[in-house]
Amino acid sequence: MSSAVTAKRSSSAQPPLIAVDAMGGDHAPREIVAGAVRAVREHGLRLVLVGRTSELAPLVAAERAARELPIVHAEEALAMHEGALAAWRRARSSVAVGCKLVRQGTAAALVSAGSTGGVVSTATVRLRTLSGVLRPALALVLPTSPRPTILLDAGANADAKPEMLVQFAYLGAAYARVGHGVAEPRVGILTIGSEPGKGNRLARRAAELLSAHAAEEPRLDFRGNIEGHDLLAGLVDVVVTDGFTGNVALKSVEGAVSFAFEELRAALTSSPLARFGTLFQRRALRGLRARFDSESYGGAVLLGLNGTVVIAHGASRAQGVAQACLLAHNLVAGRITDQVRRSVAGVSRSPSWLHRLNPSEE
Amino acid sequence: MSSAVTAKRSSSAQPPLIAVDAMGGDHAPREIVAGAVRAVREHGLRLVLVGRTSELAPLVAAERAARELPIVHAEEALAMHEGALAAWRRARSSVAVGCKLVRQGTAAALVSAGSTGGVVSTATVRLRTLSGVLRPALALVLPTSPRPTILLDAGANADAKPEMLVQFAYLGAAYARVGHGVAEPRVGILTIGSEPGKGNRLARRAAELLSAHAAEEPRLDFRGNIEGHDLLAGLVDVVVTDGFTGNVALKSVEGAVSFAFEELRAALTSSPLARFGTLFQRRALRGLRARFDSESYGGAVLLGLNGTVVIAHGASRAQGVAQACLLAHNLVAGRITDQVRRSVAGVSRSPSWLHRLNPSEE
Repeated sequence: MSSAVTAKRSSSAQPPLIAVDAMGGDHAPREIVAGAVRAVREHGLRLVLVGRTSELAPLVAAERAARELPIVHAEEALAMHEGALAAWRRARSSVAVGCKLVRQGTAAALVSAGSTGGVVSTATVRLRTLSGVLRPALALVLPTSPRPTILLDAGANADAKPEMLVQFAYLGAAYARVGHGVAEPRVGILTIGSEPGKGNRLARRAAELLSAHAAEEPRLDFRGNIEGHDLLAGLVDVVVTDGFTGNVALKSVEGAVSFAFEELRAALTSSPLARFGTLFQRRALRGLRARFDSESYGGAVLLGLNGTVVIAHGASRAQGVAQACLLAHNLVAGRITDQVRRSVAGVSRSPSWLHRLNPSEE
Repeated sequence: MSSAVTAKRSSSAQPPLIAVDAMGGDHAPREIVAGAVRAVREHGLRLVLVGRTSELAPLVAAERAARELPIVHAEEALAMHEGALAAWRRARSSVAVGCKLVRQGTAAALVSAGSTGGVVSTATVRLRTLSGVLRPALALVLPTSPRPTILLDAGANADAKPEMLVQFAYLGAAYARVGHGVAEPRVGILTIGSEPGKGNRLARRAAELLSAHAAEEPRLDFRGNIEGHDLLAGLVDVVVTDGFTGNVALKSVEGAVSFAFEELRAALTSSPLARFGTLFQRRALRGLRARFDSESYGGAVLLGLNGTVVIAHGASRAQGVAQACLLAHNLVAGRITDQVRRSVAGVSRSPSWLHRLNPSEE
C-alpha cells in the first residue's frame, strides 16, 4: 500500500498546488518541511508551505529548496491539544490560512498533521460543506487485503443522525472509486450482531435507510452489517458509522495490533533459543512492521467539504508527511470533490422519498 | 490467567451448586457435558446439567458420571441465532429452567454458552434486576497485565443512559474486588479524546456524573477517559461504556489480535529460512497462543441480577466450559451478588443528590 503508490498525473500541464500546514504535528516544523521536500523531489508534487516564515525559511534554506517550496506566512499555529474551539479562536492559524488558499482556488488541497479536532473544525468553518452535505466525515483506510477498507466517520462527528450515515456511504464510495479504483464499492454498516435489525437505535435506523436507498439507487451496493471482528476482514470497501463508534473502533484496532506485536516481540525474545530463531526471520519481520507502520498510509481524509483536506497522524515524520501529500495529490488528480458532489447530489435529490419512510421507531 | 486459577473454597461444608445449560453453544451438548465432567473432577465443583434428558443421559453415562452430574430436564433449547425475543417465546428452554433453579435457590449460578442475546434477555426476565439496578450489564475480562481489566457493558444494552453507566462502574468494581482481589478498583470511561469533556453526549454526561460521584464516594476511584488504544494497556481495572460501543470495541480488539497473529504466521512461514527459525520458537509461540485463547477466560458475567450468570463463548469446547463453571463458582464463593447489591445501594441512596446536577446539556 505504501511504496507502490506513485503520483497520478493530472490532465493539466502542471500538477495541482497542495498547501501544507508546516506548523501542525508533534515534530513540526522540521519533519513537515523534510517531508514536503521529499514529496517535491521524489514524487514531483507542487507544494506550498504555510506557517511562520521566520521559522520555516531557515529550514527550507538548509534543504536548498527555496525555489521548489514557496512559503505563505501565517502568524499563529494551533497547539496539538487545541480542539474544536481553535477554529474560532485562531483565525490566523496556519490551518486557517491553508484553508483560505484552498477556498480562493490558489491551492487544490490542504495537508496538516495538526490536532484532528482543530483541523476538522477549522476546515469545516472555512471551507464549508458541499451543497446538500449535512456534515463532513473523516475517512481512514484500514490495511485489509486484497484491497483496503475505508472507515468513516473516524471522529469528526461524535453525535450523528441516521441520515448522516447514509451520506457517509456515498462519501466513502466516492473515495473508494477515486482513491482505490473500485468501480462498484461495497458498503457495510458497523454494528453489533450480524442479522438485520441488530444494533443501537442509530445503527438500526441508518441500516434501514441504507437498504431503502440501495433498493432504488444502483450505485449504492449496501451489504448490511459489519461487526467489530470483521473490520479487518476486507468484506466491504466502505464501513460507515458515527464518529464516536468509529474512533473507538479504530483506536481499539490500533491498540490491539500494537499489543499483539509487543507480546510477540516479548515471546520471541523470551529465551536465547527463541531469540536465535529470529536471526532467520529478519526480513520477514521487517516486512510485517512496514505493512502496519502508520507512516505508510498517508492519513485521514476529511470528505464532504468544498476542497480536499488530508489529516496526517500527529506523530508523522518526513515519510508520513510525504505520503499524506501524495494522497492529497492523488485525490485531487482524481477530482474527489467533484465525485463527492455528484455522489451526494443523488441523495439529496430525493428528500420527499426519504420522508416517506417511517421517521422513527423509538 | 488460566491454568493458575483454582476453585475458591466456600465457607460452607459443600461447594455451591452451579446449573449448566447443556443445550447452549455451537458444540452442545457433547462439549458442554465434557466440560462439566472436567469441572467436577478437576476442580471439585458441584454442578447440575439442564437440558433434554434423552440427549444428556447417554453422554453422562459414557463419561461414567451419572452420580456426579445430575440432570434437570428442560424440553426446549434456544437456538444460537435466537435473540432477545427468545426469552418470551421459549418459556421452557434450558436457560429458562436454569434461571428457575437459581431463583428458587436450588442453584447458586447459571452457566450457558448459548446465544448472548437469548441468555441475557431470558435471565433478565426470569431473575430480575437487583433492587435499585436499572439494567444488568455484561462484563468481560481483557487479558491486560499485570492485572486484568473488566469491560462493561459488552453488549447487554445497545442503547444506554448516563445513569446506567454510573451503575456499571459500581457493578464492575464489585467484580474486580471479588473476581480479581482488587481492593480499590480504578474505573475509567471509554470515550474519544483524553481530556475531560470529550466524547459523545452519553459519554460526556456519564463522565460528569462519575466525577461528581467520585468526589463524594470514597469507594469510587474514577480515573477519567480511556481511549480505544488504551483498552489493553491496563491503566484501570474497570472500563465502563454502553453495550453498543463496548461490543464494537471488544470485537474490534478480538479481530485485530487474530488479524495480527495471522499476518505474523504468514510472515514467519513466508520463506524456508523464516520457517526454519520457528523451530526454535515452538514453546514461546505456544505460550503466546495459550494466553490469547478465548477458552481460558471463562466467559462474560451478567451483573446486576438476583443471581450469577456466566455466558461462555458460543464456540466453547470442554476446556472453555470448565473455565466458565470455575468462574461462576469463584464469583459465588466471593458472594458477588451481595457485593453488587451493597455496592449499588450506595448509588441509589442518593437520588436527590443526583438531581441537583445539571440534568441535560443538549
